[in-house]
Amino acid sequence: MFSRMELISGLTVEGKSKMLLLVLDGLGGLPGEDGGTELESAHRPNLDALAAKAELGMLEIVDVGVTPGSGPGHLSLFGYDPLEFEIGRGILEALGLGIDVGPGDVCARGNFATWGDGDVVVDRRAGRIPTEKNRALVEKLRQEISEVEGARVRLYPGEEHRFVAVFSGDGLKDAVFDADPQVAGPMKWATPTDPAGERMAHVANAFIRKVRDVLRDERPANGCLLRGFSSAPHIPSLGELYKIRPAAAATYPMYKGLARLVGMEILEAGKELEGVFDAVASNWGDFDYFYVHVKYTDSRGEDGDFDAKRRMVEEVDSLLPRLTSLCPDVIAIAGDHSTPARLKAHSWHPVPFMLASPYVRPCGAKSFGERECARGSLGIMPAHKLMGLMLAHALRLVKFGA
Amino acid sequence: MFSRMELISGLTVEGKSKMLLLVLDGLGGLPGEDGGTELESAHRPNLDALAAKAELGMLEIVDVGVTPGSGPGHLSLFGYDPLEFEIGRGILEALGLGIDVGPGDVCARGNFATWGDGDVVVDRRAGRIPTEKNRALVEKLRQEISEVEGARVRLYPGEEHRFVAVFSGDGLKDAVFDADPQVAGPMKWATPTDPAGERMAHVANAFIRKVRDVLRDERPANGCLLRGFSSAPHIPSLGELYKIRPAAAATYPMYKGLARLVGMEILEAGKELEGVFDAVASNWGDFDYFYVHVKYTDSRGEDGDFDAKRRMVEEVDSLLPRLTSLCPDVIAIAGDHSTPARLKAHSWHPVPFMLASPYVRPCGAKSFGERECARGSLGIMPAHKLMGLMLAHALRLVKFGA
Repeated sequence: MFSRMELISGLTVEGKSKMLLLVLDGLGGLPGEDGGTELESAHRPNLDALAAKAELGMLEIVDVGVTPGSGPGHLSLFGYDPLEFEIGRGILEALGLGIDVGPGDVCARGNFATWGDGDVVVDRRAGRIPTEKNRALVEKLRQEISEVEGARVRLYPGEEHRFVAVFSGDGLKDAVFDADPQVAGPMKWATPTDPAGERMAHVANAFIRKVRDVLRDERPANGCLLRGFSSAPHIPSLGELYKIRPAAAATYPMYKGLARLVGMEILEAGKELEGVFDAVASNWGDFDYFYVHVKYTDSRGEDGDFDAKRRMVEEVDSLLPRLTSLCPDVIAIAGDHSTPARLKAHSWHPVPFMLASPYVRPCGAKSFGERECARGSLGIMPAHKLMGLMLAHALRLVKFGA
Repeated sequence: MFSRMELISGLTVEGKSKMLLLVLDGLGGLPGEDGGTELESAHRPNLDALAAKAELGMLEIVDVGVTPGSGPGHLSLFGYDPLEFEIGRGILEALGLGIDVGPGDVCARGNFATWGDGDVVVDRRAGRIPTEKNRALVEKLRQEISEVEGARVRLYPGEEHRFVAVFSGDGLKDAVFDADPQVAGPMKWATPTDPAGERMAHVANAFIRKVRDVLRDERPANGCLLRGFSSAPHIPSLGELYKIRPAAAATYPMYKGLARLVGMEILEAGKELEGVFDAVASNWGDFDYFYVHVKYTDSRGEDGDFDAKRRMVEEVDSLLPRLTSLCPDVIAIAGDHSTPARLKAHSWHPVPFMLASPYVRPCGAKSFGERECARGSLGIMPAHKLMGLMLAHALRLVKFGA
């Protein structure tokens, strides 16, 4: 037996066809007052026109009832079984800050904290210091600490009391449990969860002591904690797996980071929605698989703003011709999870998607929405199978068996 | 990689929401003369009204084409993969008789049999002696045999020639093959299938010799056979897995036994249908997951009585408001397998189900029936995933990954 990924990879051949995956983050929703979801109640003539020529279905991102984080959500859309390929919190935090994490590097999420005498942690968040203060503290630490016990250390400020530490060097493994007492009280130092993590735990604790020393005259942030030790997982690259040249157009660092993790080239897309659409057009000749990420549908869902999420769908709809006019051979439109405004959070509901190519069996859909997709001919499909289906429609897969 | 059960268990948090699973045993059917199934042709206004606000689908209990027994049917509905968690026949027989089976106990199904000279089995069923005779024989054996080779023995009469033996004591394992020649002829004694089963096989054979001795003057039942040696499987309890307080309202011993096996509290529900509905209401405050079992839909299906099964659905429909008026946060209605009257037996057909909660995407169903469910937005779902879906709708699961 072999995995789905190995199966598809083994069938892949090179080709000239072009594939495009448009991800509306958090696309799936729940019915609002008029009975339609955010997507269903949006004015979306371009999406509907495409749906009429496409095949529709629902994506199960992780498994029935399971609410996906952004990491598993995207890995699944990129063809990786999210239960097989997991991404640690430290790594995702680093990706979110746009930090380049290499193989063997270990990331940890840091908190600035208030320490009392005798290694007692008085406030695990140092009173949630302002982000500006955080930046100043990180700058100070950078001046003083670039190496600990032979390991290189890089530091990056986050919001309020949060920062990220990246450790590089021989013998560092992420098999380390948090240096964090969880509640105010005596410090709990980093401990290896496996002998392989011994050196990393030792380096982490030495780093924390050095930070205490450098910040000894600061108040309230006179120390730090570290948790979520994680290395970039070994993920085979899309290019190697499927003989494609993949590129990503995204505005948010975390999604660029996820795309980089699977071997995509990151296109210059700026900070605005239009930028991601234009980035595809300007790089059309150089790649054959484009991942286009729209963050704001998820953000408006998380805000609980049904109408704003609906309007965001409408804005994407109005920009869609910039992609369809490039005439990709295969276009898939989906979300990485649902984010119903009513829940103000990611949810477990399957995600509507459509797939258009010259080789679909159109099912006569009148629109692109949750309920039309639930009746779609593609059924409810594990999201990590989408990549293989796109490759099939791009005529990039040979026959299995004779 | 981990199993579905481990995945869901790891995501579970405590909560105050309440879940209810109503099982109409053998619910699924086949079309009768007027073209509708037993369920479809029933007058079921309450089920239909709930369906209009719910999501519908079909449950695949074990696997496509596989007819489930009651054990796998229920384990699957309770969230256990029925191919991973198997229940031996001896255990199920014991549960069906309402026998309390502890950890380490080994159950076996017994037959009273007619033995000839020289350990030859002449009739494996002793001419199917009347149940009354069976009771008298078991009583006689109880007087004479309470222990064999240091193991405690408990005996329970069944129907006709069948009884159940439960062996308790150190070193007893169910790795034993039947003490039963299968056809009339020389006795085949119990043999260990694994060295761990040696003591149990030895005890079983000594027990059979003792029975021969006690019943030497009886005719035709002057001996016995034992088969289906099995221990209660180690099944992690629902409470531990999902941080819930589960309770069962059922009238039949086997279903109470199955519920006890997975750690449910058994409510006092009497012997009548109304009792199970009222038991839920009277215990509503003390639990947060209720399993309600209606046996008679299956019984009427097994009788081959289409109309009686249809009427049983109607009776459940009329009682449904006693459950819905309790306002559970999540209500799932399903069968544990199909029992079409036309087949007079369990069948492999997927089972219609619906799930109602404030967080569904209603698909505008006009009724609750096999064909409406086959078009439902939840698709065809492995039944053992229902528990996780109920927990999701009860807002009891946290996000997977960051």
